[in-house]
Amino acid sequence: MKTAIIMGSTSDLAKVEPAVSILKEYGVEVNVRCLSAHRAHAGLSAFIEECNHDGTEVIIAAAGMAAALPGVVASQTVLPVIGVPLSGSVLDGTDALMSIVQMPPGIPVATVAINGSKNAAYLALQIMANKNDALKTKLLEDRQNMEKAAMKANEEVIEKFK
Amino acid sequence: MKTAIIMGSTSDLAKVEPAVSILKEYGVEVNVRCLSAHRAHAGLSAFIEECNHDGTEVIIAAAGMAAALPGVVASQTVLPVIGVPLSGSVLDGTDALMSIVQMPPGIPVATVAINGSKNAAYLALQIMANKNDALKTKLLEDRQNMEKAAMKANEEVIEKFK
Amino acid sequence: MKTAIIMGSTSDLAKVEPAVSILKEYGVEVNVRCLSAHRAHAGLSAFIEECNHDGTEVIIAAAGMAAALPGVVASQTVLPVIGVPLSGSVLDGTDALMSIVQMPPGIPVATVAINGSKNAAYLALQIMANKNDALKTKLLEDRQNMEKAAMKANEEVIEKFK
Amino acid sequence: MKTAIIMGSTSDLAKVEPAVSILKEYGVEVNVRCLSAHRAHAGLSAFIEECNHDGTEVIIAAAGMAAALPGVVASQTVLPVIGVPLSGSVLDGTDALMSIVQMPPGIPVATVAINGSKNAAYLALQIMANKNDALKTKLLEDRQNMEKAAMKANEEVIEKFK
Amino acid sequence: MKTAIIMGSTSDLAKVEPAVSILKEYGVEVNVRCLSAHRAHAGLSAFIEECNHDGTEVIIAAAGMAAALPGVVASQTVLPVIGVPLSGSVLDGTDALMSIVQMPPGIPVATVAINGSKNAAYLALQIMANKNDALKTKLLEDRQNMEKAAMKANEEVIEKFK
Amino acid sequence: MKTAIIMGSTSDLAKVEPAVSILKEYGVEVNVRCLSAHRAHAGLSAFIEECNHDGTEVIIAAAGMAAALPGVVASQTVLPVIGVPLSGSVLDGTDALMSIVQMPPGIPVATVAINGSKNAAYLALQIMANKNDALKTKLLEDRQNMEKAAMKANEEVIEKFK
Amino acid sequence: MKTAIIMGSTSDLAKVEPAVSILKEYGVEVNVRCLSAHRAHAGLSAFIEECNHDGTEVIIAAAGMAAALPGVVASQTVLPVIGVPLSGSVLDGTDALMSIVQMPPGIPVATVAINGSKNAAYLALQIMANKNDALKTKLLEDRQNMEKAAMKANEEVIEKFK
Amino acid sequence: MKTAIIMGSTSDLAKVEPAVSILKEYGVEVNVRCLSAHRAHAGLSAFIEECNHDGTEVIIAAAGMAAALPGVVASQTVLPVIGVPLSGSVLDGTDALMSIVQMPPGIPVATVAINGSKNAAYLALQIMANKNDALKTKLLEDRQNMEKAAMKANEEVIEKFK
Repeated sequence: MKTAIIMGSTSDLAKVEPAVSILKEYGVEVNVRCLSAHRAHAGLSAFIEECNHDGTEVIIAAAGMAAALPGVVASQTVLPVIGVPLSGSVLDGTDALMSIVQMPPGIPVATVAINGSKNAAYLALQIMANKNDALKTKLLEDRQNMEKAAMKANEEVIEKFK
Repeated sequence: MKTAIIMGSTSDLAKVEPAVSILKEYGVEVNVRCLSAHRAHAGLSAFIEECNHDGTEVIIAAAGMAAALPGVVASQTVLPVIGVPLSGSVLDGTDALMSIVQMPPGIPVATVAINGSKNAAYLALQIMANKNDALKTKLLEDRQNMEKAAMKANEEVIEKFK
Repeated sequence: MKTAIIMGSTSDLAKVEPAVSILKEYGVEVNVRCLSAHRAHAGLSAFIEECNHDGTEVIIAAAGMAAALPGVVASQTVLPVIGVPLSGSVLDGTDALMSIVQMPPGIPVATVAINGSKNAAYLALQIMANKNDALKTKLLEDRQNMEKAAMKANEEVIEKFK
Repeated sequence: MKTAIIMGSTSDLAKVEPAVSILKEYGVEVNVRCLSAHRAHAGLSAFIEECNHDGTEVIIAAAGMAAALPGVVASQTVLPVIGVPLSGSVLDGTDALMSIVQMPPGIPVATVAINGSKNAAYLALQIMANKNDALKTKLLEDRQNMEKAAMKANEEVIEKFK
Repeated sequence: MKTAIIMGSTSDLAKVEPAVSILKEYGVEVNVRCLSAHRAHAGLSAFIEECNHDGTEVIIAAAGMAAALPGVVASQTVLPVIGVPLSGSVLDGTDALMSIVQMPPGIPVATVAINGSKNAAYLALQIMANKNDALKTKLLEDRQNMEKAAMKANEEVIEKFK
Repeated sequence: MKTAIIMGSTSDLAKVEPAVSILKEYGVEVNVRCLSAHRAHAGLSAFIEECNHDGTEVIIAAAGMAAALPGVVASQTVLPVIGVPLSGSVLDGTDALMSIVQMPPGIPVATVAINGSKNAAYLALQIMANKNDALKTKLLEDRQNMEKAAMKANEEVIEKFK
Repeated sequence: MKTAIIMGSTSDLAKVEPAVSILKEYGVEVNVRCLSAHRAHAGLSAFIEECNHDGTEVIIAAAGMAAALPGVVASQTVLPVIGVPLSGSVLDGTDALMSIVQMPPGIPVATVAINGSKNAAYLALQIMANKNDALKTKLLEDRQNMEKAAMKANEEVIEKFK
Repeated sequence: MKTAIIMGSTSDLAKVEPAVSILKEYGVEVNVRCLSAHRAHAGLSAFIEECNHDGTEVIIAAAGMAAALPGVVASQTVLPVIGVPLSGSVLDGTDALMSIVQMPPGIPVATVAINGSKNAAYLALQIMANKNDALKTKLLEDRQNMEKAAMKANEEVIEKFK
């Protein structure tokens, strides 16, 4: 299993790292890049081309402000592209959300929440699980564990307010 | 290849049909349902359970207003869930967009544009192409055709303004 | 008098506690739970079913982001459900407000202000006062006290600017 | 069972009528008034005072633009007040939503969707059902019928796309 | 020259004080009150009635969230009412702005910027100057001084960047 | 009694006319102008200068989009300036509202609702009534008539739903 | 004088034509293209490269929704790029505005109003006038004519309301 | 090469300085002014007139809130005017963005991002490069360096996550 994560700026590093961590925990190979659609145009195209041929299954692209990155990536691949709108400007990521989610017909970007890089990772895993039964089993187990943890938190809340 | 499309209300039919058409053109089996998260709670859970076991690869969920449907679907499956926010209230779908894209960590919904059911279909195809080389080849060809059509439209525009 | 308060995440605890305190001051039994619509689906349904049969009169549901919780609760009960949109994401609770207030016909959620858990408690009290004259009398007294406190604050402001 | 519905302007009539119809279908007495918080100040206070003493159980207040009506009503009663933000200005009801939902602590308004008068009626019914078992039974039956209708619509959708 | 300033809550004091200071600098009598439209309904009406008969020329009303105060004041007087939307909730005063500026025909509120109590004072002065030539002369002088100060700041900026 | 109404474009005529009509009904002299802050800079300054010396008591300025007009007028006079944000762009007047209401300290604009030219007229009347007792008496009578009309509409609504 | 106008879709034609007309009236050569950043990636890069070497002085790029086009153009040239956000989705162009104006440091796009293609043309002319005195003289004359037309409209408005 | 930068208030200094620095690095003469459209009306007009005759090639105007400055400047010159919306009010610069970008036809303002003074400088440089080949060559070199720096940052990111 191989994925790529592209961020638009090194200032996005901290917001992107949770996705890298989650994917690595699941044993997924992650190629992380910092390639702005606006400042590293050629380098970005070269890397997408690489992804198209090296067995990468999903590409995650995270960017803030006029976040063209996910859409530009999506226009050069038929791999599923997950877009993560990042806060960072004074507009708290609503600018990035609009720039990522409102894609025209034919070139989809799977958009997650503002700063939602964790869910970008989970979505990538769920996509790859489509052809990887072991991963699917692990995801199902983790969901059950998530539910158990949720029920345990619930018990603590019940106790607290008793 | 098998997908499911769930809409929240029969009034959403016209906005959902383009997704059905595109998937069928690609030879994908599509199970279409109208199962509101709020009005058909049990029926919805039963159908998701079905999808979890009948080989469905992707679920598309389209809803307007306080659009809980895609998130509720996502909470009961580890299949990739694509959310389509629909306009229909006086708020033009911004309410649905917020209700769909801002999912909490652990339960991702792949959100597309407001009324973006075409892209929901293309995204589903790209996800399924991950384990289906013939589909991937067809998607690549279609992208090339899309680009050719775009370049032809460009020729016409050049002509028009000459 | 018995009520239930459900929050979506333990991180919402501090924002929910004022509602618990107010209800307890009025001698109301409060069953507090932490049951995410997305992460504790079965546990949530089980608890709503309990509320439906144990004499609970009102359910308060508080959640942030794509806040499906109040609507999902409302879909499984005919008890009055009060929804509290919580801030917590970068969008300051506007996402949660949209996800809670824009419910489709047939399944109402009584929505209060963003982070308005105090008013959720007062609204619950006013609803229960419908069949509890002692509570109604106390609410009327408290309104009079509130007005007296307001007039006293006014006197202090007059003094300050004299 | 007795309720009151207050609208701010006769131009709101069509948006308020669905609430009247639903309440009457359930055999509820409905006193409908058109009393602007801004243009019929004294008349409004007089009517609220009436409601406070004539056995009215719930007040629904519907208004557009700077919709002070529901809050002003709520400040003069401890009956549950349901606020319906109406569209009608160029802002599509977002102005009214903000004016109604963001009430200060101590004076709650149970806010429903923009133009959501149907849900205002259902919420009023659910509140009154708290002390009226026959009404509660009817609401439960109607929910089951709503679910049956939803499942029937689902069958038709399945058929349509077969 | 006599004015009244009404705030909705003592927590608004610091945001309202600049208006008091400016008016006092100009020798205007200012009656400051803290009278919530929602929590001090009777006291508010009594004070407006006072203003209607004691020679008050302008009323400034400042409030946050579902800011009904300025509109409720305006509905009980034909004195000019200036509304100041205050930030204070998580929505940064946009809720208060909508609740104040979108008044229905017949009951105007002269709205200034969010937290704009200084301009509320200047607007009050400009209104009163209509029948007070000395005040008008002073306002004109102050405008000239403001312009001189602006031109002096400009000189400093020129110097800084030379 | 003399007022001026300035609109930014002849396309605003229909939205401004209600203000002219109301003022004329009250026997107020109205000088109507179409002087864009952006396209008729010198003409606008000349007219404001005229207003400053010909006994004009209030200036109403109505504009859409990046509505600089009211602020530019306000910067050249100490007469009270009432700003009317107009819809007309795709943004429904929210752009104009922001451009008019958010004035910096020292230069106030009394902002009314989007397309609220009627209230601009009433506000101008209320301002002029400060030194005109006959006008004040008429405004008070009209308020009473407005209230009577409101109560009459209320009677009709009562009748309709009996 | 030579300019290029690129639109993202043939559906944008009517919104772009005013820019073409204005530029042609001024004797400017205009190369019009329809080259989506997402669907005609290679064709777009080829055309920008052409512009970089054929004497084009300004590029206008107009697009709707997640409008990456102007930014992608700007990233491949140091010619001034003017971005025109277009309405067309349910969001009335606010999505395109955010996607165009919020560019990261280093790659500017000169953004005009939503659907503001006329101003895109005028801005292009003003930029080219920097090195073309005849054009500058014509622009100054046209401004004077615009002002004359504005003053003539003002005369008609004065007449109408006399 | 000569430019002018006008800010509306000395409180904007820190947000404007990056533009001054960049322009000076490129050897451009920069005349910096602090001239509010609202508080220094005459001084502003005098300075624009100066710019119109002293060889200034581009004017940058930066302002917050109801940011009339860039539009007022644009109305008095046919030089290209670049508008920088500044944050500073509680609305984070969205008020300024609307006030600057939504200019009416005929008077364009080239708007950049909220607080985007760096890009204002780069846009000014790109505009002046139109008639200055040496500057154009330097801009092209700098773009190449920017791209190299971007690719170097990418290498570091690759290294970090290896």
